[in-house]
Amino acid sequence: MSVTSVQEALSGRIAAGSRVTVRGWVRTRRDSKAGLSFVNVSDGSGFHPIQVVAPAALDNYETEVKRLTAGCAVVATGTLAPSQGQGQAFEIQAESVEVVGWVEDPETYPIQPKPHSLEFLREVAHLRPRTNLFGAVTRIRHCLAQAVHRFFHEQGFYWISTPIITTSDAEGAGQMFRVSTLDLANLPRGEGGGIDFSRDFFGKETFLTVSGQLNAEAYALALSKVYTFGPTFRAENSNTTRHLAEFWMIEPEVAFNDLAANAKLAEDFLKYLFRAVLEERQDDLAFIAERVEKNAITRLEEFIAAPFEQIDYTDAIGLLQKSGHRFEFPVEWGLDLQTEHERWLTEQHVGRPVVVTNYPEQIKAFYMRLNDDGKTVAAMDVLAPGIGEIIGGSQREERLDMLDARMAQFGLDPEHYGWYRDFRRYGTVPHAGFGLGFERLVVYVCGLNNIRDAIAYPRTPGHATF
Amino acid sequence: MSVTSVQEALSGRIAAGSRVTVRGWVRTRRDSKAGLSFVNVSDGSGFHPIQVVAPAALDNYETEVKRLTAGCAVVATGTLAPSQGQGQAFEIQAESVEVVGWVEDPETYPIQPKPHSLEFLREVAHLRPRTNLFGAVTRIRHCLAQAVHRFFHEQGFYWISTPIITTSDAEGAGQMFRVSTLDLANLPRGEGGGIDFSRDFFGKETFLTVSGQLNAEAYALALSKVYTFGPTFRAENSNTTRHLAEFWMIEPEVAFNDLAANAKLAEDFLKYLFRAVLEERQDDLAFIAERVEKNAITRLEEFIAAPFEQIDYTDAIGLLQKSGHRFEFPVEWGLDLQTEHERWLTEQHVGRPVVVTNYPEQIKAFYMRLNDDGKTVAAMDVLAPGIGEIIGGSQREERLDMLDARMAQFGLDPEHYGWYRDFRRYGTVPHAGFGLGFERLVVYVCGLNNIRDAIAYPRTPGHATF
Repeated sequence: MSVTSVQEALSGRIAAGSRVTVRGWVRTRRDSKAGLSFVNVSDGSGFHPIQVVAPAALDNYETEVKRLTAGCAVVATGTLAPSQGQGQAFEIQAESVEVVGWVEDPETYPIQPKPHSLEFLREVAHLRPRTNLFGAVTRIRHCLAQAVHRFFHEQGFYWISTPIITTSDAEGAGQMFRVSTLDLANLPRGEGGGIDFSRDFFGKETFLTVSGQLNAEAYALALSKVYTFGPTFRAENSNTTRHLAEFWMIEPEVAFNDLAANAKLAEDFLKYLFRAVLEERQDDLAFIAERVEKNAITRLEEFIAAPFEQIDYTDAIGLLQKSGHRFEFPVEWGLDLQTEHERWLTEQHVGRPVVVTNYPEQIKAFYMRLNDDGKTVAAMDVLAPGIGEIIGGSQREERLDMLDARMAQFGLDPEHYGWYRDFRRYGTVPHAGFGLGFERLVVYVCGLNNIRDAIAYPRTPGHATF
Repeated sequence: MSVTSVQEALSGRIAAGSRVTVRGWVRTRRDSKAGLSFVNVSDGSGFHPIQVVAPAALDNYETEVKRLTAGCAVVATGTLAPSQGQGQAFEIQAESVEVVGWVEDPETYPIQPKPHSLEFLREVAHLRPRTNLFGAVTRIRHCLAQAVHRFFHEQGFYWISTPIITTSDAEGAGQMFRVSTLDLANLPRGEGGGIDFSRDFFGKETFLTVSGQLNAEAYALALSKVYTFGPTFRAENSNTTRHLAEFWMIEPEVAFNDLAANAKLAEDFLKYLFRAVLEERQDDLAFIAERVEKNAITRLEEFIAAPFEQIDYTDAIGLLQKSGHRFEFPVEWGLDLQTEHERWLTEQHVGRPVVVTNYPEQIKAFYMRLNDDGKTVAAMDVLAPGIGEIIGGSQREERLDMLDARMAQFGLDPEHYGWYRDFRRYGTVPHAGFGLGFERLVVYVCGLNNIRDAIAYPRTPGHATF
């Protein structure tokens, strides 16, 4: 007897006639008039459960097998056999079905074998991975994460983990969460009456990071190609379906890259990820296409097949103005593009992913490289049909004098960015990178609308369940 | 002309005579009396720099090449040629050396081509990846992280990211960092005068997670094999060389596993990681062995070769008592093992890694499974020569009534652990897992003593640099 995963048992890699044991949870049970029961068992290893055929001759057939309900844990041993059942190549003809864990009060067990609303499932986040949908989401999420690491590794990047607790604010904007061990009931006060942060854990005010980019830049100027893949935080109280307070971000940073190389990297990267999901998670994607988003597979295939278009921001403004389309927000050189503009560009005008480049300097972050026109910076946004903006990046301002001028313009204190300025004094080189919110990617691939369904434990503003 | 990494140029995979371009930073420059200069260029892609031979005939030879100092950024193009130089297979006979970034005031550039103290390098964390040592540490760290993901993926695990901001405290102990957006200068008060956390971002008191284990357990009871690899936090003000306030933790959790299977997983896992480093980072390990820890390679090889020993805690106490060794801390059944005891067991007594199992229930966490003797729990610690305790794990208490009894004994409020209790009501099964601090592993492999040298940006208690 050898223990095998359900996925392995169904894969065809184990010879029919082998004696196997699977361990998992009952999805459904059907009793046949012929005096046997069909018990579908899932262990989450892949999308499909395996059918365990339990004959009445089992010792515990009447006392236990016929009492099995959704969610019960079982260990089933028997012979792997070709199945006559629809849509399954193999089944297990059981010689024993051991019940390891019963379901207390099956009537009220929240995960019944029927569709549940996503809202309801967010309330039972500790149980929702047991559903078809969230099993699929978790496996797809894993597949994407593995592909992220594999892509960068194959391309010669090194992973670095930048500080989560930090004193700096990469965006110069963005609401941050304070991190502290001060006793709120008894806050230490300084001479002027203000809070004395020298008494806090790190001896100064600290926050949760909004981005690892500035740190990654310093590493890129030593190891050439690095990336981060870790959690970042925004304390914006925007209760939308597109924002999370806590999300994982992927941030590659490459020395000697200009904006064109940066855009190429973004294209190669996204296509690699989507190819991985198409190859490795066919079972889950088929379910998504059947139940959630019928274009789930074809749109990934189209994404991979199409070369990205590149449009200069200035040209994009011209196109939008001449489009004849009535937009809610104004279209004017110097204003940022809104979602409706981005969608028109990628979905209506081009019909495939678009990289918009060279935005007006006043609407982009201080660290972006000023172009020779003195009016625009080497920024880029990758827009894609059905997602909108999925990647934001730029060539960074590697010239210290220019950086200082930008910082002055944004009213940033150079002292606060001491080390960030400093590494530009020694062998500075052009460099570029981008950021990609991981959960937004997961939501897109899984055809979901609410970003809270891309994380293990959803948390709505005003409520931290876990 | 094709741009290549230095590692690729040195690998032998590019034919001698090819025209190549490398981009990187000068490590050293030596001028020959024959009228040419040898410029060692590193791009961080591997340990070794490549020697660029710059002839006097270059246009900028006198004006620029002869002014190159450590840290200057260059782009060198030329012919890849077998090298007569010691310890290098190839060099580049340059036809151009473009200087991209100079070093401002070379005399004061902190990263000179000489050994620096680790203390000094912690103060210039944004520059230390440019040193041989921290280049090696970063690449080894990357190699280990990749191996973590690859091992679990190959074994059929799914990666999940558990919440960083949380309301629960997995250990029931452990000092936590508060996360808040409340205005400290104007804290909202409730009726009794206490802080009104319903006005905080999540509507309740929230902290940084100390472990993802409890969350991972719920996923293991749906997907069978899961793991986390993400940051965790401890606000203990222990200014030691072995503790960090912020560190990455790896936590696998497996349904149907007992303690023996858990120990086997830990052994397979560690050996897989060390094998990966030995195979993939020979260049960096050779440097570590030469300069930092002379046994760096042999001890990893020995670790892989030796089967782990297993010792019951009760037996370990007996062995320690009979050892004849004088320990500083008392050895007595019911007391936890101290580092000196652990080191004696693994280094003196067994001479290879040891898994100590079945600790007294009163010294271990509430979620560990009570053994049939009613006195011990199915806990395990993996101890290894030169590291001490590297992994801590257990079989979890899957029986709800037993868990409730343990929680009562520890004075924990069952309400606070509602969802953690709840998933045991539905198809509960034996399950087990462990935790491994990633930076402790890195420090060990790299032969370093201070855990602050395993992270990208060191931060000493009382001082958050970044």
